[in-house]
Amino acid sequence: MKKIHLVGLGLLGGSFALAARQKFPELQLSGQDANSQHLQDALDLGIISVSKSIPDADTDLVILATPADTLGDLLVQTLAQIGPETLVFDLGSTKAKLCSLVASHPKRSQYLAAHPIAGTEYSGPKAADAGLLDRKVMILCELEKTDLHLKEKAYRLFDALNLKLRFMDPAEHDRHLAYVSHLSHLTSFMLGKTVLQKMEDEKNIFDMAGSGFSSTVRLAKSSPEMWAPIFLENKDNVLAALDGYIANLSAFREKIAKEEGESLKKEMEEINVIRGILDFGK
Amino acid sequence: MKKIHLVGLGLLGGSFALAARQKFPELQLSGQDANSQHLQDALDLGIISVSKSIPDADTDLVILATPADTLGDLLVQTLAQIGPETLVFDLGSTKAKLCSLVASHPKRSQYLAAHPIAGTEYSGPKAADAGLLDRKVMILCELEKTDLHLKEKAYRLFDALNLKLRFMDPAEHDRHLAYVSHLSHLTSFMLGKTVLQKMEDEKNIFDMAGSGFSSTVRLAKSSPEMWAPIFLENKDNVLAALDGYIANLSAFREKIAKEEGESLKKEMEEINVIRGILDFGK
Repeated sequence: MKKIHLVGLGLLGGSFALAARQKFPELQLSGQDANSQHLQDALDLGIISVSKSIPDADTDLVILATPADTLGDLLVQTLAQIGPETLVFDLGSTKAKLCSLVASHPKRSQYLAAHPIAGTEYSGPKAADAGLLDRKVMILCELEKTDLHLKEKAYRLFDALNLKLRFMDPAEHDRHLAYVSHLSHLTSFMLGKTVLQKMEDEKNIFDMAGSGFSSTVRLAKSSPEMWAPIFLENKDNVLAALDGYIANLSAFREKIAKEEGESLKKEMEEINVIRGILDFGK
Repeated sequence: MKKIHLVGLGLLGGSFALAARQKFPELQLSGQDANSQHLQDALDLGIISVSKSIPDADTDLVILATPADTLGDLLVQTLAQIGPETLVFDLGSTKAKLCSLVASHPKRSQYLAAHPIAGTEYSGPKAADAGLLDRKVMILCELEKTDLHLKEKAYRLFDALNLKLRFMDPAEHDRHLAYVSHLSHLTSFMLGKTVLQKMEDEKNIFDMAGSGFSSTVRLAKSSPEMWAPIFLENKDNVLAALDGYIANLSAFREKIAKEEGESLKKEMEEINVIRGILDFGK
């Protein structure tokens, strides 16, 4: 592993770079970012050592870590720039559109569709953390379409970073993430909005930090630049998840309105099975 | 502080007892619990040293820590049992009904309406923790109706436990908590339900733990025995909060359906102010 080039130097791209440099001290890291302040921050923080628009021909890996709605054009553009020994992978939260876009691309075998299940509610190079990816899940899609030899380069990096690899069909990935990740962000944003609308006194919100609100609303701190595109790129799945959620809320609302205490308890007991699922393996 | 008696020996009652014993080593702690296993656990864990149905006449404090729907009858019953030097306070999550119930009670001055903003998603004596209440907010209502001399006994305990006292009108408390605490629990339960309905493969849920789901759904592990009564006791406020939440979800849904990306971003940016509010004072 000699050279990695990154497009997008924010939380995820930056965390990949910092972790890769720890594991491969000789690594040459170049990159670019559409935000000139982020580019400067990334240079200052040692995320990359050189700003570059086009990866060198002998680059091992190009990592695309920009918002979901920019990845399609960026991927096609990058495939046109790279040499024959370079593998490109993206870190996008949606996979079906991207895989479909390059399905018949002559350089399809130089692309790997990837999605690390890692993040925080913060964004930008300053939020990057060398430990963010450690022991996290990395979902890979359409693995069979990527060149075997080039895939090995990605595996070397993933293994060095302790990523746990999982394999999914792109459509399955998007459907799954709509429920588990995208819906969580959406419900958290709307919880934040509902409470903000009601509360005029900010002091009171702070005082209530032990109430469970702070963890439930945490994701409402997330970057709109990142999340608006995800909701739109995965629109059909997100709408289906959201409709299911609203239907469940409305049914629960009726049980409260009718004071059906036993039925409320029974429903919550059934949901309590989430305890065993979330704690599994810990 | 010589004697404290507790009715309800679960997470909150147990945590009060454990913390009180640390601060006042000579304290005699008695108590009862409708669940005989919880009573035995509380004795085994040293939460109380003696099981007792009626507090001794010289008890300093009686703490009522049972589910919200049982507190009314229990408070009236307890006021009938106590001697003149005993103060009763409850830890219930709703305050208006309780304060109204005893508004004209001859022993009203021996009662203090209290609500500690503390908890976890676990319940029962085994979940009790001597550190749970440390530096948490304790809301007190209708303070002026409680006897000055008796109040001092509660203050001694609250100060020893590092509780930060706040004062609210009972109706204001219930309205406020509906948004900040009760709505958070409700949205978390419904998120858990929606995901469980969709996912048949439990392994996948676990794999997604880095996705933001685990923190957002954490409160769905909470006790139905505790939460069903809270939703019903605070029905009007909870329904108002829930209706506001559903309206916000529906409006956001329409923006996704119409692919109004800029409007989605703008809305999320406005909600991002929650960052400064939650981080305030940290």
